[in-house]
Amino acid sequence: MTSHVKLRKDKAGMVDYDTQVKEVRCQLVDQLKVLDFQLEHKSQHLQDLTDYLRRRGEIESEYARSLDKLAERFTSRFKRKDPSNHSVSKSWIALLSQTRQESKDHNLLSETCSTFIIQPLSHCLEYTQRLAKKSRDICTSLQDGLLKVTTEMQTAWRTYYQYHSDYVSAEGKLKEAEEKHKTGAKKLERLIEKRQIKVDDIYLKCSKARNDYLLNLSAANASINKYYLQDISTLIDCADTGYHLTLTRVMQAYLSSRLRAQQNLGTGLQQLQEAVSALDQSHDRDTLLQDHYNAFSMPLRFNYQPHDGDQVTEVSAESEMICELDTRFKQIQTRLKALTDDTEEASQNMFAAQSLLIDCISEDDLELSVAPQENSSDCILIRPSVARRKANLQELENVYFTRVKDFLVNSSLVSKLQAKHDLLKVALEKADATNGHQPRHKSMRVRKNISSANLIHNQKLFNGDMQLFIKASGQQIPIVVESCIRFINLNGLHHEGIFRVPGSQMEVNNLRDAFEQGEDPLTEQRYNLDSVAGVLKLYFRSLKNPLFPIETTSQLLEYARECVTIL
Amino acid sequence: MTSHVKLRKDKAGMVDYDTQVKEVRCQLVDQLKVLDFQLEHKSQHLQDLTDYLRRRGEIESEYARSLDKLAERFTSRFKRKDPSNHSVSKSWIALLSQTRQESKDHNLLSETCSTFIIQPLSHCLEYTQRLAKKSRDICTSLQDGLLKVTTEMQTAWRTYYQYHSDYVSAEGKLKEAEEKHKTGAKKLERLIEKRQIKVDDIYLKCSKARNDYLLNLSAANASINKYYLQDISTLIDCADTGYHLTLTRVMQAYLSSRLRAQQNLGTGLQQLQEAVSALDQSHDRDTLLQDHYNAFSMPLRFNYQPHDGDQVTEVSAESEMICELDTRFKQIQTRLKALTDDTEEASQNMFAAQSLLIDCISEDDLELSVAPQENSSDCILIRPSVARRKANLQELENVYFTRVKDFLVNSSLVSKLQAKHDLLKVALEKADATNGHQPRHKSMRVRKNISSANLIHNQKLFNGDMQLFIKASGQQIPIVVESCIRFINLNGLHHEGIFRVPGSQMEVNNLRDAFEQGEDPLTEQRYNLDSVAGVLKLYFRSLKNPLFPIETTSQLLEYARECVTIL
Repeated sequence: MTSHVKLRKDKAGMVDYDTQVKEVRCQLVDQLKVLDFQLEHKSQHLQDLTDYLRRRGEIESEYARSLDKLAERFTSRFKRKDPSNHSVSKSWIALLSQTRQESKDHNLLSETCSTFIIQPLSHCLEYTQRLAKKSRDICTSLQDGLLKVTTEMQTAWRTYYQYHSDYVSAEGKLKEAEEKHKTGAKKLERLIEKRQIKVDDIYLKCSKARNDYLLNLSAANASINKYYLQDISTLIDCADTGYHLTLTRVMQAYLSSRLRAQQNLGTGLQQLQEAVSALDQSHDRDTLLQDHYNAFSMPLRFNYQPHDGDQVTEVSAESEMICELDTRFKQIQTRLKALTDDTEEASQNMFAAQSLLIDCISEDDLELSVAPQENSSDCILIRPSVARRKANLQELENVYFTRVKDFLVNSSLVSKLQAKHDLLKVALEKADATNGHQPRHKSMRVRKNISSANLIHNQKLFNGDMQLFIKASGQQIPIVVESCIRFINLNGLHHEGIFRVPGSQMEVNNLRDAFEQGEDPLTEQRYNLDSVAGVLKLYFRSLKNPLFPIETTSQLLEYARECVTIL
Repeated sequence: MTSHVKLRKDKAGMVDYDTQVKEVRCQLVDQLKVLDFQLEHKSQHLQDLTDYLRRRGEIESEYARSLDKLAERFTSRFKRKDPSNHSVSKSWIALLSQTRQESKDHNLLSETCSTFIIQPLSHCLEYTQRLAKKSRDICTSLQDGLLKVTTEMQTAWRTYYQYHSDYVSAEGKLKEAEEKHKTGAKKLERLIEKRQIKVDDIYLKCSKARNDYLLNLSAANASINKYYLQDISTLIDCADTGYHLTLTRVMQAYLSSRLRAQQNLGTGLQQLQEAVSALDQSHDRDTLLQDHYNAFSMPLRFNYQPHDGDQVTEVSAESEMICELDTRFKQIQTRLKALTDDTEEASQNMFAAQSLLIDCISEDDLELSVAPQENSSDCILIRPSVARRKANLQELENVYFTRVKDFLVNSSLVSKLQAKHDLLKVALEKADATNGHQPRHKSMRVRKNISSANLIHNQKLFNGDMQLFIKASGQQIPIVVESCIRFINLNGLHHEGIFRVPGSQMEVNNLRDAFEQGEDPLTEQRYNLDSVAGVLKLYFRSLKNPLFPIETTSQLLEYARECVTIL
């Protein structure tokens, strides 16, 4: 095989200039085709990118419109209700406002795609075509130059060939004459001399022709080198001028619009996440109670209304009744003990049932999020299980509410009996004291003695008149104000939301009752800061005469407006 | 005003139990209304959220479908062309694949919205209504209990009132009898005694009734306290069971789906950004040249083809011609000097024109991105300016291409003359040497002397037969192989993409030429690693007989397949 290849190769080595030039010509034609193809390719790409961006703009605009309509539909429905600051409402508001932000961002993206950045592309298409055409023209003329150089080289080569063959034949003739001369032909000296001159002459011409051929050969090779190694690259670069630049700029504009939207999305989702994390059942319950203050505020205590002239205000344990009262007290005490235990148990049962119910509710969700990923054949298997779980859930609900009812009924009874028990105990202890006995009854629970501060006067603290209260109680500053402010100063100065978050309705009510009865609950127990702030707000709000008289309100508001203007 | 308030307040203090109980009754009714309202509100919210998610799912699905269609349209169009690894194509591929990823992500979000998380909401709606109903039932029965306690208290109060007024009248009658007795009526002692007994009797009854009243009063207040401060909160909590939990879980599922999509978007945009940053005009030009190797590869040099028997291969500067050659050489030298300067200037002019053109192209874009943000009235002002800029651009293009043509034509002439100049110079120097003269001509540029290595034999290195070349050259390993591998070992072992990235076409050609002429260019100059790898690849690829004989190819491929299977 090697020998065969060698043969082929040797033949290939023999290619004459015509064949070689023909091959070069073919390459040159191909090059122009490639340049045309390249222009077609670039135009197509610019067109594709324009089409992409235009269509993308439409898609984004449609998406933005849908999202906006969605957000708007619920926002308008929502505004009619205006449901204050429940955490659920807040998370809903966050969801809708995030949706609106998304709509805005996609709308901006749509504008970017369909207006801002399409025009540079169409400009680019225009000048790319012009540049390609010009580049191609120069390429053609360079190719012409190249072919001219090769033609010159070929001509020089042919001339050299001619002269050299002339030279060879002249030299042959000279030799022939010289041979003849040697063999004895005498008259040939003139001829030899003539032929020698001719040989010398042709030798010089042939050398010059060879030199010319060699120079043209070198020039042709140099031209080819330069054309292939430099000119083609330069021309392609010229045709490409501005193409990559414009693409980069357009894509960067697209990207910066997208990145902005992506960052906004991140921020929006973060805020939504915060709103969802802030979902708080207790807070919403307290807000509900606050929102419907009139329905849920504690009514006035039922006061003792003695009959005309009756001076007795307490349970009397005079000798005739003491025995009966004692019996009754003991009965109540026994009953109370049993009931308290029951209530304790009922409470535990209730919480156990609650956590079972919550577990069941959570389980339900999880199962559902997994199920749809499986096959439809699995769904048939799961359906009965879903039905069973539903039945199970209802059963757990029933158990829970039975126990809630048990607990509430029991504990209501306990509170009633406890009140009676406490009253009887005090009466019996007093009777014992006046009779010189030691207290006979162990206290069921330690109750704070109500200070007699507000028994001396009958001015109400809450819903009362502050000046009258101060006059009647002798307190320069009502204890509720002094104590709450001290507490807030000690614990809450750095707490941001104070006076804005409503406290627990229950704690606020407890505090109100305690203050109304002349106690200072804050000296003994730690209350929630918001509730303390809440009871202070409640106090000021419930004053019969507002702290700032009504006549001055409009003037105060005016001052406030001026302050705002100055700042 | 203060006195008026005081009067009002005193009157308010006089409210009787009936009025107070009536107010409490109203509150209780209101509370049930609030609970109903709360249920309605919760149901509405669950319904709204379900509607939102369902519609959102539809919107997302539509958006995903549009994006997918968009990406698909261009992908299928693109596949037909398959345009290798141009950086422009890569950025386009990145754009399309990012679009597909977005489509996938939005589709997943759609599924999440419309299937996974809607069902828990409908379950929640069901049990929320059941729990609210049960909670309301318990509330009603607690309210009944409360009203019963107040009724008992009122009854006890009435009994006490009755007994005390009886007592007052009995005592009055006793006093009346005692008055009469004092004023002298004698027969009244029996009556007094009888009345005293009656008074004592009624006093005891009255005391018991008062005790009963006081106990019931205390129980009523305790019950009210407990109901308002604890029971209501407990019942609201019971009705809320699972509501916040389910909302949190649903929103978290929604959020995690969104966050995943948002992160994917970030990654996708990052990749797109990288592809856009990698847009590279030079790289794309080299890739184009590589892709159309046949059209752009350097043709074979034109070889010197001497006439039969002509032993001379160089420009001859024999005495007869030396003068003429010298003259010609000097002419060329002068011409070359002038032309080189012209070319240098043309090159500078060309680059200046190019940067003006690029500036104009960039300016165009920027102006357009800003304009649409302004009013439509501004557009009219801008339009003529746009037209002017277009004209300006075309003018700059013309200037640029005139200069490009100047430069290329000039430099082609330079390379041609330079080749002739060099050849003449060598010839003249040789002539000088044989004539014993010092070199007369200063070199225009220093050219490496071509080593005579490949003059000894006529085996080609590239497109040749390796065995014949080794035999002819006496090199055990062709220098191109040895030198390239040494270079790569020294510089490129840690370079990842080597042998995959095509080098610069121009450098590869230079290297090929140098190696073909028997030089080792790598000892003198630092070439780009990829180009060195490129010339080595070119060498192996161009061998007449491949390194691995054709007969063994199928067997080698089989081994490779086995290796892959084993691994």
